[in-house]
Amino acid sequence: MGDKLELKFDDKGLITAVVQDDETHDVLMVGWMNEEAVRKTLQTGRTTFYSRSRGKLWVKGEESGHVQAVKSVRVDCDQDALLIGVEQTGGACHLGYRSCFFREVDRKGNMRILAERLFDPDEVYGKGE
Amino acid sequence: MGDKLELKFDDKGLITAVVQDDETHDVLMVGWMNEEAVRKTLQTGRTTFYSRSRGKLWVKGEESGHVQAVKSVRVDCDQDALLIGVEQTGGACHLGYRSCFFREVDRKGNMRILAERLFDPDEVYGKGE
Repeated sequence: MGDKLELKFDDKGLITAVVQDDETHDVLMVGWMNEEAVRKTLQTGRTTFYSRSRGKLWVKGEESGHVQAVKSVRVDCDQDALLIGVEQTGGACHLGYRSCFFREVDRKGNMRILAERLFDPDEVYGKGE
Repeated sequence: MGDKLELKFDDKGLITAVVQDDETHDVLMVGWMNEEAVRKTLQTGRTTFYSRSRGKLWVKGEESGHVQAVKSVRVDCDQDALLIGVEQTGGACHLGYRSCFFREVDRKGNMRILAERLFDPDEVYGKGE
């Protein structure tokens, strides 16, 4: 892993990471990784992201226990996006849903919720969140 | 559609768009949309993206005929990513594959091709590409 990763990071040093349920193929979330996050994800087998708002790495599930065990990592033709196949414990979304994509947008731009909450985010992440 | 879209565009006015096969749930590609591209995608039922390198809108399949008919549009919890379910004609990837994610990355960062080419990109896009 001292090798150079053949990936294209953007002008902020980040790459888009799409996380997909390895069994159902549902897309669970989209996150961002810097080179260190990619290396940690590959080395540890747990998804690790870079938080643009907090400016630091975070391991998915470090607070909630809702970890993502990495089953596969794919890269796209332009080498500027990753597709991570995972086994998701609990829900991927911090609002309590299995997938962050729990709302549909209609042709007029209106949104409606498609999914049921799996858990109460206040209980999992604490009232202060 | 004069309504304001409740989406969060980044500092370049763009949002990440993940395109997924509506039937197989395979992730086909990741693109970028500005507000106009989102509106055109919703209005026309054909995916329209913003090319960061060319600085203009493009309709997927306008050159290759490999269009994407929009079946659903979802938005994530942070409203900064879209998931577009499509019926894909031909292949999504300009290199000739069904999906742009045709390579796997192993734990050491090495890549290997997983998929077979569907078409010869020279024939579809012309030798000059």
